[in-house]
Amino acid sequence: MASRPASLSGFPEWLPAERIVELSFLDTIRRTFELNGFASLETRSVEPLDRLLSKGEVENEVYVLRRLHAGDDDADLGLGLHFDLTVPFARYVLDNAGHLDFPLRRYQIQRAWRGERPQEGRYREFVQADIDVIDRDSLPAHVEWEIPLVVGTALRALPIPPPVISVNNRKLAEGFFRGVGADDPGAVLRAVDKLAKIGPDAVADLIVADAGLSAAGARVCLELAQIRSFDPSFADSVLALGVSHPMLDEGLAELTAVLEKTSAAEPGLVMADLRIARGLDYYTGTVYETVLPGYEALGSVCSGGRYDSLASDGKVTYPGVGMSIGVTRILGLVLGRDLVQASRSVPSCVLVAVADEASRPDSDLVATALRARGIPCEVAPAAAKFGKQIRHADRRGIPFVWFTADSTVKDIRSGEQVSADPHTWSPPERDRWPTISATEPKEPHL
Amino acid sequence: MASRPASLSGFPEWLPAERIVELSFLDTIRRTFELNGFASLETRSVEPLDRLLSKGEVENEVYVLRRLHAGDDDADLGLGLHFDLTVPFARYVLDNAGHLDFPLRRYQIQRAWRGERPQEGRYREFVQADIDVIDRDSLPAHVEWEIPLVVGTALRALPIPPPVISVNNRKLAEGFFRGVGADDPGAVLRAVDKLAKIGPDAVADLIVADAGLSAAGARVCLELAQIRSFDPSFADSVLALGVSHPMLDEGLAELTAVLEKTSAAEPGLVMADLRIARGLDYYTGTVYETVLPGYEALGSVCSGGRYDSLASDGKVTYPGVGMSIGVTRILGLVLGRDLVQASRSVPSCVLVAVADEASRPDSDLVATALRARGIPCEVAPAAAKFGKQIRHADRRGIPFVWFTADSTVKDIRSGEQVSADPHTWSPPERDRWPTISATEPKEPHL
Repeated sequence: MASRPASLSGFPEWLPAERIVELSFLDTIRRTFELNGFASLETRSVEPLDRLLSKGEVENEVYVLRRLHAGDDDADLGLGLHFDLTVPFARYVLDNAGHLDFPLRRYQIQRAWRGERPQEGRYREFVQADIDVIDRDSLPAHVEWEIPLVVGTALRALPIPPPVISVNNRKLAEGFFRGVGADDPGAVLRAVDKLAKIGPDAVADLIVADAGLSAAGARVCLELAQIRSFDPSFADSVLALGVSHPMLDEGLAELTAVLEKTSAAEPGLVMADLRIARGLDYYTGTVYETVLPGYEALGSVCSGGRYDSLASDGKVTYPGVGMSIGVTRILGLVLGRDLVQASRSVPSCVLVAVADEASRPDSDLVATALRARGIPCEVAPAAAKFGKQIRHADRRGIPFVWFTADSTVKDIRSGEQVSADPHTWSPPERDRWPTISATEPKEPHL
Repeated sequence: MASRPASLSGFPEWLPAERIVELSFLDTIRRTFELNGFASLETRSVEPLDRLLSKGEVENEVYVLRRLHAGDDDADLGLGLHFDLTVPFARYVLDNAGHLDFPLRRYQIQRAWRGERPQEGRYREFVQADIDVIDRDSLPAHVEWEIPLVVGTALRALPIPPPVISVNNRKLAEGFFRGVGADDPGAVLRAVDKLAKIGPDAVADLIVADAGLSAAGARVCLELAQIRSFDPSFADSVLALGVSHPMLDEGLAELTAVLEKTSAAEPGLVMADLRIARGLDYYTGTVYETVLPGYEALGSVCSGGRYDSLASDGKVTYPGVGMSIGVTRILGLVLGRDLVQASRSVPSCVLVAVADEASRPDSDLVATALRARGIPCEVAPAAAKFGKQIRHADRRGIPFVWFTADSTVKDIRSGEQVSADPHTWSPPERDRWPTISATEPKEPHL
């Protein structure tokens, strides 16, 4: 899994053994989602531009499609590639509302595109794995702790550092900033979002300059942003700051409920972190971000939140809660740093050797018998010397080579060779399909 | 699975139960490919335009990307969305040749895009499932029968009419047309390709007009095009036409070998059909098309061929053989005509009822215990009356409802209700996950 320069910056492609790691990650995520009753959906890759541009802060980042001959009538299609899976899902719900059962629990594993400047953790084409629950008119609060618990289960099943999901609440933050006297709480939120990048003093200056607060008001906003806890105790720290506003009370109650339930179910998974803002405009309450401890500089590997009015046709509104796993971001980390490896680069558990081209049909029959019993295998491409055929298997990590002449199978790792019948022989279960495992990290930190 | 008007023509989206059919098709195809030792790969969705435009006849059909603000320096990226998976795979092989083991057996299941006029069987965005074997310098002939046999195994495992894979050979056709005296055998090929559309008389006229053959020469070309057989006997019919050319001999030997092997292994699957041409320029020998009997008007649902010079860096050439299953085309047929149905619209096998919100944690515990044993389930979204919760399950096809108060589980199809422990109870295996099955076709023909 040597790292190679991408031939087109920001559009990653994996080698076969790396793709086995990706497939294993995707299979684990899918299985977790399905065990939790989320149904798979996919949406088309394109959306009307006006829909893409009305949501979020991605105006520069959308790839627009046109047909090759710009003179054609329909060359300008007014379509762009989606930049996330939430906006398309909200549109899908509106398009198909009459054919869907609510609440709708769906997962969606698909590519998305952003015209960003590529760097570690940022790609122009990437795979996301989303879950959302969306309902008609109203959505119960328990979804706000169910979603991070399901995502936590999925991420903890992967061979990566145990994730920490940070949670905040937009109402809590906005109510607090209004309670301090800010007329434009969004400006405070945007300033606080830069805390990790520019430090507390510069953030305080920004708050004073952009949100019109006093230096003292800015300071208390900064104190809020530094509160965090893995249990509901964060609420005491907020109340101790002495700010009051009805919206703050509402957000505080919502966030407290999330922490009560998640800390009881999965201690150490979910942390209240009042710094979290999330860039996208469509979140209205609870918001989530996720870091892998030791790799904080990579940014969030799974984000989301509650959106109460993203999907609305003017008459009916469909509120939702969702999170999105940045599969490519996680893979870029674990493959780029050799943190995870596959046991082999091909599905085949057995290479059936070919003694000479005249006996190839015998080898084909053995392969057919093995496949009928669920054992992946391939037949040697040429009747080369057996040493060369064994090297063919060894280079790919195929553990077994089958010889038809004397009906034996050799474990090329141990050298053990035994008589075998293709209608009854089975490999050890751990060898049947490729597996993946964590390696020792060479550099623990970015 | 009522058909709905697509909200954007040519960009199909499925409802949840339809997506379960698609997922099941993809899982079956993937498993067949992996049992046969094909490794999964994906490529980025974009390719440089010059690469896309130099291959095949798709000049008008490519979607070009630009960044939103056309004034930006890099607005014109010179990139387009790929229109198939063969051209990107050939490029991937050249990019990564030093990191790959040859022969390389890969499968690739991914979306592709063409700016075609949408109609039944033709989409602007669609999913393809490809297998290819590619080698360095030379590629043995046995791959030419292995590939259609693997594809046949995959397609025969789906609940669709048993496919017929038609095979021809470009060398056979070109050699024959040259042997008749055609200077431009490509013109004859293009004319013959229109046989089904415009009929033999019009094709004969075209051959005379475009390829400069006599009426007698055109007639013998038409006779060739009407030869077909499920075994190697087609070769006698070709020889009976009395044409000779070295390239014809070579193609005839290759096609005969394909029919000998495939008719022995899977009678009735592969048919020599000397009409088959394939539009794409990169095929150099054996070519494949596949129809579903009864639905010929849909066109080919799986095509491919041998390409000896698609991947070449000027020094090394990587010849390959591959076929591509048109997954979306098949799904458009079976879903549009209700030929296949899913047993339910969600993964959940069990709905855990909620007696009142105070006891929701009890329901969550039951769900966690079931999931730990691989039983997909969901907890009722609200503590509604049990009748309403049962209707929630019924609408989605969830077969079992669990009641925590008396620890019973009810099969809502039979009404049978039994005591059960979430740590030991299991559903019948056929109910654990959604399944799909063929329905009786309402209209047998297009």
